[in-house]
Amino acid sequence: MNGGHRVVIVGGGFGGLYAARALRKAPVDVTLLDRRNFHLFQPLLYQVATGGLSPANIASPLRSILSRQRNARVLMAEVVGFDLDGKKVLLRNGEQPYDSLIVAAGAGDWYFNHPEWRHVAPGLKSIEEATELRRCILSAFEVAERTADPAAREECLTFVIVGGGPTGVEMAGAIAELAHTTLRRDFRSINTASARILLLEGQPRVLPSFAEKLSAKAARQLGRLGVTVLTDTLVTDMRPGQVTYRTKPPAGAAGEAVERTVRARTAFWAAGVRASPLAEMLGKATGAEVDRGGRVRVQQDLSLPGRPEVFVIGDMADYPYQTGKSLPGVAQVAMQQGGYVAGLLARRLEGGQPPPPFRYHDKGSMATIGRAAAVCDLGWVRFNGRLAWLAWLFVHILFLIGFQNRVLVMLQWAYSYFSRNRAARLITWQEDDK
Amino acid sequence: MNGGHRVVIVGGGFGGLYAARALRKAPVDVTLLDRRNFHLFQPLLYQVATGGLSPANIASPLRSILSRQRNARVLMAEVVGFDLDGKKVLLRNGEQPYDSLIVAAGAGDWYFNHPEWRHVAPGLKSIEEATELRRCILSAFEVAERTADPAAREECLTFVIVGGGPTGVEMAGAIAELAHTTLRRDFRSINTASARILLLEGQPRVLPSFAEKLSAKAARQLGRLGVTVLTDTLVTDMRPGQVTYRTKPPAGAAGEAVERTVRARTAFWAAGVRASPLAEMLGKATGAEVDRGGRVRVQQDLSLPGRPEVFVIGDMADYPYQTGKSLPGVAQVAMQQGGYVAGLLARRLEGGQPPPPFRYHDKGSMATIGRAAAVCDLGWVRFNGRLAWLAWLFVHILFLIGFQNRVLVMLQWAYSYFSRNRAARLITWQEDDK
Repeated sequence: MNGGHRVVIVGGGFGGLYAARALRKAPVDVTLLDRRNFHLFQPLLYQVATGGLSPANIASPLRSILSRQRNARVLMAEVVGFDLDGKKVLLRNGEQPYDSLIVAAGAGDWYFNHPEWRHVAPGLKSIEEATELRRCILSAFEVAERTADPAAREECLTFVIVGGGPTGVEMAGAIAELAHTTLRRDFRSINTASARILLLEGQPRVLPSFAEKLSAKAARQLGRLGVTVLTDTLVTDMRPGQVTYRTKPPAGAAGEAVERTVRARTAFWAAGVRASPLAEMLGKATGAEVDRGGRVRVQQDLSLPGRPEVFVIGDMADYPYQTGKSLPGVAQVAMQQGGYVAGLLARRLEGGQPPPPFRYHDKGSMATIGRAAAVCDLGWVRFNGRLAWLAWLFVHILFLIGFQNRVLVMLQWAYSYFSRNRAARLITWQEDDK
Repeated sequence: MNGGHRVVIVGGGFGGLYAARALRKAPVDVTLLDRRNFHLFQPLLYQVATGGLSPANIASPLRSILSRQRNARVLMAEVVGFDLDGKKVLLRNGEQPYDSLIVAAGAGDWYFNHPEWRHVAPGLKSIEEATELRRCILSAFEVAERTADPAAREECLTFVIVGGGPTGVEMAGAIAELAHTTLRRDFRSINTASARILLLEGQPRVLPSFAEKLSAKAARQLGRLGVTVLTDTLVTDMRPGQVTYRTKPPAGAAGEAVERTVRARTAFWAAGVRASPLAEMLGKATGAEVDRGGRVRVQQDLSLPGRPEVFVIGDMADYPYQTGKSLPGVAQVAMQQGGYVAGLLARRLEGGQPPPPFRYHDKGSMATIGRAAAVCDLGWVRFNGRLAWLAWLFVHILFLIGFQNRVLVMLQWAYSYFSRNRAARLITWQEDDK
């Protein structure tokens, strides 16, 4: 500890962690606060939910990651608010004073005006949600094997995924693989390959943030895996055991919207996220605008109006200056913003000029669709298929920083890939037998 | 399915699973019932509890293990009782008829006449208990780091292990390693190496089932790791935050028993097990004796009196015919009994002579004490130290049948070993912040 300028970082996700690491040579004392004791590599949570990886494969203790950074300490604590005038973060038990504050608490699932849907269709934001989802998916097959009633069996073997963004597409592909390949020989009474997997997307195409051509490729690949893709389709009601959705006719076509109800034991939510409530708190305290997604409008240097020592980055920040709308809620944005703020602070402490406004450099996006298929959109080049999948694998393994050991994860994957097995298929935390 | 003789096996532990596999060539239809969808390699649970391995490393889906055995099916179901006259197993939802029945539901923790101790000191019988214990142990360090009160800090850094059998010794060694090596550089306010680890054993020596010389070696090795071993010591009271124990003077020495209370946030129970309540049910139904450990007295062929088609094996069975007392509750016994019953059934179906009474062949016992140290007692030879540890490692990896892939577990271990890291140090299922 330097006994110097105290930087407090709230959240050990991509933004907070990269900010902490970028401050390693700055003359500051960094305190990283997180409710959890680990950093989670969220892009691979869907692999935990489908039994391909173990939680520890994609989570790494924050203390390990920062263990050698002597100017940083980690405190496992829950932030409940801020005293911006007193320059203190309010914790569930106690408080933490700061000289500079970086808030990077991320986002959670968002069910629009239907909070009751949360219990019907869990999302995929935490280890607990992922293991819960794994339990739901695997239990559905177990219950189907046990029952003799064909209607109940069909309900068990129907999976609805709401939202056709990268997470929804990845989950649909992984569930299809699980049903059609991994589990095929494991059951005696049911044919797991008869499972129905429905992917519902409100826009006219899946992966709406990708180029149209890649959306079409992804839809075709999903069809080949046995996923039924319904675009222009919004969920109107969800309750245990059934999902109701409305499909608009395609643009330009005549006809009415059609509403259908499907019986499904398992539903999964990937249709909306909302920033941590800490964003709204900061908006209220500083007069900064808060958008529909709960994000707080930051200044061009990511600080809050009138509070040059308070920064908000990642999924909590609304930064519309570059493209006219918010930047996407992806790891890349959070990491670059974390690095920017760290650089700004270092410069400020040296008495240098403030840096130019933050600029996001989009390095492209990718999504995987089951075994050995993916789409990549790097801006200057777009590709799909096996090459895209290898690129996806490479980038994801590369970014598993400090993680349990990249080589092991790679081997685990190679094993799952060649054996078509998913070894982490555990139903833990006792099911509520239905 | 053969449509032939129906063998129902209750429990997918070592006994049940080995019985099922040993029946693979018999003209029978095997149904394996288990509450869980996986077989658990219990001897390594302590590695999960201390963050060295992930649950999936030591658990393997039962369906995968039996996937190629076409005469076997797996049903995830909870057994609540038996209708021995009607030859049916009663499930929570439904029933399962049988022609022959093998009951192998194992044992759980047993707190003598103090069921309230369960909440203070969890045991180590399931994945959930192991992850719960991992959460407790890791949270203790987190809370200690957060607190400024020296007494509270000391309470956090005191760990009490009740029971000096193999599980207690392994846990004590692993916690000592965690505190003194793995976590040493991760904290800023506390010195994790100052953690106190108390191992309480009621007998005059740890590992009482081993040769005296090995007990002494184990105690010395534990001392070197920083574990305080208290023998002749019984717990008299446990409540959240404190443990009271009474130490008798050593045999032959004069003096009174001394009672002490130690403040400890984390306690762990490895002092007693009791057979599944299904054993008592079967005892009542057949008139067979039930011993203090809840085990039912079986006949010399492991069947129940008057029920030649019902067998009880493993931790649930009291088989005193060979040594005058019950066989130990270890995997070896369960596996050999499972194989014996399978052979008996095959012979019976062929109309052959009944086999001679079951004989247990003790292949020795081993326990590990932290990194690269263990004791082995194979009967004809006893050894300890690094060689014993390698033997322990070899045998345990060897028996990880069907498990997630032995090579991966081996690599995981090699990695933990050389890096002195324990990567699966995740606090999941939100702690109750104290």
